[in-house]
Amino acid sequence: MASRSAATLDDLRRHNRVRLLRRLHEGGAATRSDLVAFTGLNRSTVGAVVTELADVGLVTEVAGTAGQVGRPSLQVHPVAESAVVVALELRVERSIALLVGLGGTVLARREQRHRRSDYGPAAAVRTVRSLMRHVLSQGPKDAAWVGVGISVPGTVDHGDGRVRLAPNMGWTDVPLADLVRESILEEYGWSPPVVVGNDADLGAMAEHVRGGGALDENLIYLSGEVGIGGGIIIDGRPMTGAGGYGGEVGHMVINPAGTRCRCGAVGCWETEIGRDAVVRAAGLSDDAEVADVVAAVEAGRRRARTGIDRIGSWLGLGMANLANLFNPQVIVLGGHLRLVYPLVEEVVEQRMHEALPAVREQVRVELPAFSGDSTLLGSAEAAFAALLDDPIDVLGRSGRAIA
Amino acid sequence: MASRSAATLDDLRRHNRVRLLRRLHEGGAATRSDLVAFTGLNRSTVGAVVTELADVGLVTEVAGTAGQVGRPSLQVHPVAESAVVVALELRVERSIALLVGLGGTVLARREQRHRRSDYGPAAAVRTVRSLMRHVLSQGPKDAAWVGVGISVPGTVDHGDGRVRLAPNMGWTDVPLADLVRESILEEYGWSPPVVVGNDADLGAMAEHVRGGGALDENLIYLSGEVGIGGGIIIDGRPMTGAGGYGGEVGHMVINPAGTRCRCGAVGCWETEIGRDAVVRAAGLSDDAEVADVVAAVEAGRRRARTGIDRIGSWLGLGMANLANLFNPQVIVLGGHLRLVYPLVEEVVEQRMHEALPAVREQVRVELPAFSGDSTLLGSAEAAFAALLDDPIDVLGRSGRAIA
Repeated sequence: MASRSAATLDDLRRHNRVRLLRRLHEGGAATRSDLVAFTGLNRSTVGAVVTELADVGLVTEVAGTAGQVGRPSLQVHPVAESAVVVALELRVERSIALLVGLGGTVLARREQRHRRSDYGPAAAVRTVRSLMRHVLSQGPKDAAWVGVGISVPGTVDHGDGRVRLAPNMGWTDVPLADLVRESILEEYGWSPPVVVGNDADLGAMAEHVRGGGALDENLIYLSGEVGIGGGIIIDGRPMTGAGGYGGEVGHMVINPAGTRCRCGAVGCWETEIGRDAVVRAAGLSDDAEVADVVAAVEAGRRRARTGIDRIGSWLGLGMANLANLFNPQVIVLGGHLRLVYPLVEEVVEQRMHEALPAVREQVRVELPAFSGDSTLLGSAEAAFAALLDDPIDVLGRSGRAIA
Repeated sequence: MASRSAATLDDLRRHNRVRLLRRLHEGGAATRSDLVAFTGLNRSTVGAVVTELADVGLVTEVAGTAGQVGRPSLQVHPVAESAVVVALELRVERSIALLVGLGGTVLARREQRHRRSDYGPAAAVRTVRSLMRHVLSQGPKDAAWVGVGISVPGTVDHGDGRVRLAPNMGWTDVPLADLVRESILEEYGWSPPVVVGNDADLGAMAEHVRGGGALDENLIYLSGEVGIGGGIIIDGRPMTGAGGYGGEVGHMVINPAGTRCRCGAVGCWETEIGRDAVVRAAGLSDDAEVADVVAAVEAGRRRARTGIDRIGSWLGLGMANLANLFNPQVIVLGGHLRLVYPLVEEVVEQRMHEALPAVREQVRVELPAFSGDSTLLGSAEAAFAALLDDPIDVLGRSGRAIA
């Protein structure tokens, strides 16, 4: 009986530590009173947890800014330089790395373009290595390097970080987490945990944790790239499905009279609204960018206008389907859809009107809070998860980012 | 501090009571040792909870059957006659009522047919009243009547049991729970809680709690009637969406070149595989039943064969979409799809092959464990939920089924 109570008190302490650190990491600086109100713990418990986290350097207390009557209360801040992660986004034509500190502060950024046709797993690992070296070199000395998060446009096994299928990269069964971990081991003699996730799932997480959808328990994030990914948050939690492959909205067949998709089926949503379809519908050549389409529409070119309206119609139709299926509070349009949507807002709204009245009334459409960086920030969140779940232990086991 | 511990112990006791009763209700009779193993509680705590539940009559202990070495151990049984619910399923052409006792025992059943065109809310409430009177009259004397659960083929507001839209019934904004409660009050001078749910959601719940999908945390139940409903279980919990309207799979647009749906959109899945589409595809007249289609196919009528294959193709295509979107372990085909599927298994499998490999490998297709009764049994589970959450209190407040 005694040991049971003890275990419970220990669990409770860990639980309080986790809640408080997560609040600071996600919501930013707060006074002790804020933390008392947020956690429902009493003042002395909050004080003890803050002291514990300050002792290991994860938080610091500084005098609050003016604007308040009476003496300024202390503000507890997450220390960005205490613990860092490398967040990577691998795309068909471009890869990006961020160095992100505790609290979500972006400390460094590096981007590299590559050819669509020539980007196998080995090349990707080389790119990751070079991007990682660069952003780490710009990081704070002595920061604990607590994780690496990588997003890919494909289906990922959450258990082992294996990319099952990334059709637009031409990848099948790539043990990406293992490959990157080996590469880090080779270079640094040590590796933090490496997590790999689907781009849209990670974008959804960032929008849910830090974005405009932070209060929405049911959110869909669409990542428009060459393909269309879907990150789906249900009752505040990522929907993974049986094997972590849920949310493949790009392969929802929506036009059986349409064109064949890389996945083998005919009429997948991404054949109608993927980046290639957008460029083609506007009458531009295959190597044009979506930004060129936007320019053409804004310049009043008729072919581009007609084309983009057709895209908008398919976009709205698919969004109506998702609204009927998931009844979300918000659909966030990421990737190139972020550029397309402002051009076709009316068409989309009209098509979404075909969703059932009850779901239509409840859903809003938004652009990402982080422009093009939602996926990267989601990768960072995934990489921070281990630290947030067990800060003292993970910090103790971590190597330094810059030796 | 003392009051906090006390609250926790109280919570713990209630929690143990709930877990144990739910185990007996869902899994049937068990020895005390089974219950110790299942709950992780020690023997004396299990004993205390069993005694407590036996005191109010919800469970009883009887000597186990033979087949064991040594003295037979006592088996704890849920007592079906201790607490009952009325489960109702309102359909477009037929309504059914069950009287269900604790543990899921069906104690009485009654069915009533009606005309599709002439079934407004007032008529439905009259039907409910008459069905309810009949099944209650066959129930055990002195059973506590702890709830009423009603399924409808439409979108339902979970907060107040209002039917927002049941297009195939022609209902909009019907406060069904209130209407039925008033009718019960009028007749019995008292009413247990009345809960209303979407038919497919309730079918999914029954299959997940008691059916072949009991071990599957990600399950989709398709209720094929005039329309097609979807009940979706994600990570073991019903997916409701922002307002309880999630899972409207019948209004997933799948054939934009198809026919107009009652909901106003064109090419909804239910226009391709709903009951009317099945009958029409087989070349039978509109008043034929799906059973007639099965007979025609089995008799080798070519038109029926061709027609049903086309249905199978649309069925499989939609199922591939759902697999890509939700990555479930199992899709359960209820309602008329239960009759259609065995005729078109190969066609369905072929179309489902168009889903992404990772999701395709993980999903199985099943017929409901309870034939046509999944939805009804789900209504019963919804009606039992209050009792299972707080047995002693709910029992104390309940009226008797038969005065």
